[in-house]
Amino acid sequence: MIARHYTDVKLEKTTEAEGVSLRVVIGEKEQAPNFVMRVFDVEPGASSPRHTHDWEHEVFILSGEGRVYGGGREVSLSPGYTVFVPSMEEHQFTNTGDEVLRFVCLIPLSGQC
Amino acid sequence: MIARHYTDVKLEKTTEAEGVSLRVVIGEKEQAPNFVMRVFDVEPGASSPRHTHDWEHEVFILSGEGRVYGGGREVSLSPGYTVFVPSMEEHQFTNTGDEVLRFVCLIPLSGQC
Repeated sequence: MIARHYTDVKLEKTTEAEGVSLRVVIGEKEQAPNFVMRVFDVEPGASSPRHTHDWEHEVFILSGEGRVYGGGREVSLSPGYTVFVPSMEEHQFTNTGDEVLRFVCLIPLSGQC
Repeated sequence: MIARHYTDVKLEKTTEAEGVSLRVVIGEKEQAPNFVMRVFDVEPGASSPRHTHDWEHEVFILSGEGRVYGGGREVSLSPGYTVFVPSMEEHQFTNTGDEVLRFVCLIPLSGQC
């Protein structure tokens, strides 16, 4: 068992988008066999890339305010929202508030971002 | 894309332990292909079963206070803690506080609890 606070994991900047950082809290290093848990921080005004890939996202919003684009529509996000983005669906997360938009985002081990 | 608040999903009682309920927020119904996101509520004083199974857990603590047993030791839990329980390791979550212990717990699609 590994049990630790998510802030004990180093925050890494992403190379894909300004103002977006993540912590890989349970992944290959921890010998996760199937899927990877990351915690993302999106700064006010920042967005994740609007992109498409062949793996899914499972998301839980922890804090902040934002919106998600996916499947041709947008939905407002606040703490407690869950988002399932299926494989090959174009999507993007945007912080629309004044504080960090923080969320847990899981991908299969085969995914890369 | 499916985006909704976790409380929009029906809370179900587990048959395994008194005072433990869950919401399957992203699972087979949502056509999740690889892993399932559940949100657990453990009432004050209640515990999940101390058990073992051949799939892993990836957990993020949302609210409340508790402890987790795993790998022969116990760790105190508070919001922001993450827990990786590998396959075949005996484990148990206990609420040690006065409020609901709530956490996100992911399993592979092949897992059952």
